[in-house]
Amino acid sequence: MICLLNDYNSLGCKEVLETITKLGQENNIGYGKDVHTANAINLIRKEIGYNDADIYFLAGGTITNRIGLDAILRPYEAVISVESGHINVHETGAVESTGHKILCAKGNDGKLSSGDILNILKEHTDSHKVLPRAVYISDSTEIGTIYTLKELKEISKVCHENDLYLFLDGARLGCALCAEGNDISLKDIAKYTDIFYIGGTKNGAPLGEALVITNKDLKKNFAYLLKNQGGLLAKGFLCGIIFETLFTDNLYLKNASNSIQMAKKLREIFRTNNIKEVYVNPTNQVFVELTKEQFAKISEKVLFEKWEENDEFIVSRFVTNFNTSLSELEEFSNVLGSL
Amino acid sequence: MICLLNDYNSLGCKEVLETITKLGQENNIGYGKDVHTANAINLIRKEIGYNDADIYFLAGGTITNRIGLDAILRPYEAVISVESGHINVHETGAVESTGHKILCAKGNDGKLSSGDILNILKEHTDSHKVLPRAVYISDSTEIGTIYTLKELKEISKVCHENDLYLFLDGARLGCALCAEGNDISLKDIAKYTDIFYIGGTKNGAPLGEALVITNKDLKKNFAYLLKNQGGLLAKGFLCGIIFETLFTDNLYLKNASNSIQMAKKLREIFRTNNIKEVYVNPTNQVFVELTKEQFAKISEKVLFEKWEENDEFIVSRFVTNFNTSLSELEEFSNVLGSL
Amino acid sequence: MICLLNDYNSLGCKEVLETITKLGQENNIGYGKDVHTANAINLIRKEIGYNDADIYFLAGGTITNRIGLDAILRPYEAVISVESGHINVHETGAVESTGHKILCAKGNDGKLSSGDILNILKEHTDSHKVLPRAVYISDSTEIGTIYTLKELKEISKVCHENDLYLFLDGARLGCALCAEGNDISLKDIAKYTDIFYIGGTKNGAPLGEALVITNKDLKKNFAYLLKNQGGLLAKGFLCGIIFETLFTDNLYLKNASNSIQMAKKLREIFRTNNIKEVYVNPTNQVFVELTKEQFAKISEKVLFEKWEENDEFIVSRFVTNFNTSLSELEEFSNVLGSL
Amino acid sequence: MICLLNDYNSLGCKEVLETITKLGQENNIGYGKDVHTANAINLIRKEIGYNDADIYFLAGGTITNRIGLDAILRPYEAVISVESGHINVHETGAVESTGHKILCAKGNDGKLSSGDILNILKEHTDSHKVLPRAVYISDSTEIGTIYTLKELKEISKVCHENDLYLFLDGARLGCALCAEGNDISLKDIAKYTDIFYIGGTKNGAPLGEALVITNKDLKKNFAYLLKNQGGLLAKGFLCGIIFETLFTDNLYLKNASNSIQMAKKLREIFRTNNIKEVYVNPTNQVFVELTKEQFAKISEKVLFEKWEENDEFIVSRFVTNFNTSLSELEEFSNVLGSL
Repeated sequence: MICLLNDYNSLGCKEVLETITKLGQENNIGYGKDVHTANAINLIRKEIGYNDADIYFLAGGTITNRIGLDAILRPYEAVISVESGHINVHETGAVESTGHKILCAKGNDGKLSSGDILNILKEHTDSHKVLPRAVYISDSTEIGTIYTLKELKEISKVCHENDLYLFLDGARLGCALCAEGNDISLKDIAKYTDIFYIGGTKNGAPLGEALVITNKDLKKNFAYLLKNQGGLLAKGFLCGIIFETLFTDNLYLKNASNSIQMAKKLREIFRTNNIKEVYVNPTNQVFVELTKEQFAKISEKVLFEKWEENDEFIVSRFVTNFNTSLSELEEFSNVLGSL
Repeated sequence: MICLLNDYNSLGCKEVLETITKLGQENNIGYGKDVHTANAINLIRKEIGYNDADIYFLAGGTITNRIGLDAILRPYEAVISVESGHINVHETGAVESTGHKILCAKGNDGKLSSGDILNILKEHTDSHKVLPRAVYISDSTEIGTIYTLKELKEISKVCHENDLYLFLDGARLGCALCAEGNDISLKDIAKYTDIFYIGGTKNGAPLGEALVITNKDLKKNFAYLLKNQGGLLAKGFLCGIIFETLFTDNLYLKNASNSIQMAKKLREIFRTNNIKEVYVNPTNQVFVELTKEQFAKISEKVLFEKWEENDEFIVSRFVTNFNTSLSELEEFSNVLGSL
Repeated sequence: MICLLNDYNSLGCKEVLETITKLGQENNIGYGKDVHTANAINLIRKEIGYNDADIYFLAGGTITNRIGLDAILRPYEAVISVESGHINVHETGAVESTGHKILCAKGNDGKLSSGDILNILKEHTDSHKVLPRAVYISDSTEIGTIYTLKELKEISKVCHENDLYLFLDGARLGCALCAEGNDISLKDIAKYTDIFYIGGTKNGAPLGEALVITNKDLKKNFAYLLKNQGGLLAKGFLCGIIFETLFTDNLYLKNASNSIQMAKKLREIFRTNNIKEVYVNPTNQVFVELTKEQFAKISEKVLFEKWEENDEFIVSRFVTNFNTSLSELEEFSNVLGSL
Repeated sequence: MICLLNDYNSLGCKEVLETITKLGQENNIGYGKDVHTANAINLIRKEIGYNDADIYFLAGGTITNRIGLDAILRPYEAVISVESGHINVHETGAVESTGHKILCAKGNDGKLSSGDILNILKEHTDSHKVLPRAVYISDSTEIGTIYTLKELKEISKVCHENDLYLFLDGARLGCALCAEGNDISLKDIAKYTDIFYIGGTKNGAPLGEALVITNKDLKKNFAYLLKNQGGLLAKGFLCGIIFETLFTDNLYLKNASNSIQMAKKLREIFRTNNIKEVYVNPTNQVFVELTKEQFAKISEKVLFEKWEENDEFIVSRFVTNFNTSLSELEEFSNVLGSL
């Protein structure tokens, strides 16, 4: 089967796996106190331009969102998100289970705007309503779109003028950074947010998200919260080694870059076959409208996902990743050609 | 440095790491819906003699304790533990952070007895006090001791006569199973508990605990709780592959067996050098009394842990693992000999 | 000042206050184990036609919503509500603070429909999303509208076909029961919901809501949850005495009936003065559009509430209660006449 | 029956109940924004000598302990208490249900010492253990003993040197203040704690505890937490009126003073009858050893409580309150005399 199902469907890129095997029997101190973790932290600090950022490695996206937001919020405080935000829809109420309400804006193209935030603030002005304290955005978003630097700056400005902390979910940050039209750098993200993470799981790592805290208010006692919430890995050096490798020789961006190039190719193939793209975006998630017949036929040879369905079409999602190859896409092109 | 610091200080055993590299680019469905996970589950089901046990793979011990107990308890319900229990002392209030009180008994040799449970039940009989609903034990315990089958059966009986669920923390279960004098099998554990886990992290895996649910009350909707609490791994097949390997050709027991044999050798070395063992136990944690001078000298060449300190002695912990070798222990013997 | 501000702006009706004084020095057992509480429970059981309903008296609406829903929900489970629902907007995230997500439907006239519930169920079918388990409605609603028996039956049917528990917030239930056009009785509410409450605070009591549990699943250990969440009153007999009085000689309905009659009169006064009613409803909350000039002038002599504002109008809320008198409304009529 | 069961067994003192009836139909703004609440706050501020203390009125002790401590603690932070503390034993895990661990010391005479606190701090020094942040004491304590000013100062000193907030549960504070040998004033309590409450429920009020926050760290957004946790009363003016009355003409101390005088008389009666007092204390809870025969006979004519039981004796608790009269105690004396 051709696999365009997701960006977390193989263990990881060769460089990472080889390093893991190579260092397999090396002795390291547990709980992230090891040299690889220290080195990974330094490499990331350099990339983001913050020498004093606190950086922790967690296993996956949901636990990182959950703990990262819980580090900000008191019980009566809420996080603002776009309705389609991962925390709002796809995490089984993880944020609420730590006691916090998510306040949603409709958003536009899967993105939250500074205006959305201001509207919510206007409606929350007394102690009978939750107190907004955090803003959650993701880049790329749930539907693959990306923020512009202008948008990020505006959101950041509104946040800091209104005593809100800005949290950026970077589960698919690599692809956002490498997308055509992107004008945001890792340094910008570090500068304009208070806390964010660099996703490894969806960009070539067997697991691991690097949570970066730049705002000192949020640094205090974070290690306690991490342990308390079950997020601390005993063999922290596993993630240390992974991120050390990903941030050596630009591997993190190389992986993402492959995803983006392959997504571009994939879009061409759809265009050639007159299949219409929806939720148009420049990253590695390609959404198209398939007829039910097309859907059925393609399903015989390709792994991909049904996104939503109406009477006429099945909106389907095809995802490229660090590992997607031209030859795989040629095969895919043949599948489409033969419909 | 000779490393007798812990049993989670190297990435994992060769067999596991090699399989990870070998399967690195294989495509698998996410979230534990893959064939390796299915296979690992079947292998474990066979070992424990429960074909319909529900089995989930989580990243580490704290999150497994936390979610496993939360699956049992309503907000006003409590878990009974021995005072020295990992959940009570070393998890930064993880269980309480899910809303539940831990009721502690002093215990004996790090172990809880059926009598301890009955005493706590006697004190909790009205709705102004928490309602005990779970019992937490670990095997081996925090100080390396192990339960006998008789003790386990008695605890199980008291639990089931009193509407309590029995949870067994098996972070170091491998060593308990392989210890001299152990008369409990994996099948016994499955039979006499309601939910337990088989620890991978401390027995040769880069990460991973296999949470086994045999009581059907606790099976319902566990997948929701797992996601809700941030415990679901996107690349679930990573743990699937790890446990598939550990439960092939008895690797799980082989790893533990090495720990036990090396611990036996280590105890001999201490005896030979007239260093007194305390918290005497048959598993892979060896506690000894060192003078401050001994402690300082050994520290120059060996990684190990200070456990507690009094005016005269430093109780120190030395831990063997799947990877500890005779040659390493010979070196260690030389260190002691040269004091 | 003429007071049309709310239905919780005086201590309570004479009958209740006199009984409180009369019984002031009587000895009673604490925590709701007293004879007045027992009697109040029996009186309510008779009214609702459920001899085995479990009934608890709590201090106010928010804590009753919070604990009542928490009695239903596990951490990963959610409650369905209309967007304007009190729990969603006006309780500072109380439900979320117990760990549960609120899933919102737009609704119609402040009411949830069975179709709304079905739509939400359709979108929540796997363990990456919360599991809907409760439905929250209020009667009368946040904007004073009431459910018909047909609507209630349909909602109840959908709930019970889909493993959902139906919770009814009756903070203003008295007015709903006495409203023109209402065809629902207390017996119907007990029959078609699983848990509901009869609001005292907004209908002549100094405090107190009677939480009625008819579904036996929800009865178990509720007393523990009540204490655990801080909802148990030491002097439970205070509420016992209050509800005993309210459910003697139909006082509960008499109080509500006065609110309704006075609201009817109030609506006439607005009509006479060509002031337009919005959120038209048959209960004791009267919403009207005032010009800013009208708003300012009326404010000089009348206590009432600004509800929302646009460029042209201030939607204002005037509320009648058990205590509102014809003479007060005549004064109010004069105020409007003199504008 | 003679009632020596508790100090919350009648609705309240005459002065309070009469005021409630007198002000029954007066219009007041809800949620504690009324003039009586403002006045009560001012009266208390004057008594405690803190003009800028934030003061809130809550319904009862458990919810006040729960919310007051939650105002201090983050999820990984813990509160230190004596083992017998009300929050640890008699609140069905209320504190834990907000996510926080209680760290217990054995204590002495029901009291915590500064040394106890230091011992716990010594054991909690890394992020694998909870972070102590609050200290909970009650005055009078669970067994009626009282703190000396010296003890309070020492505890306060240790707290403030170690970044701990001191919370004082004053459910029975009136009796502590009026006890023979007491050398602590309300001003001292306000000065040496960060947050405390003045219990009304057990001192003549139908309900109500006045939570006083003197430390400005804890003031911020407390109103949000109060609403979020269900502690805000709609008819806040009920408690406003109650505390206004209690703090006029020294009624609060008069009520407590009666309890203390009657307890003194009660102790004399026991002495005269050669019944031995245990848990000797100077406040309104009198614990004595009764034989089983004595217990049975007294029970026929007197309401009181079994505290604990051994082979020989039943330790029984007799409680006086604002309402206990000499004539009642004479009757009681006759009961004892006739045994």
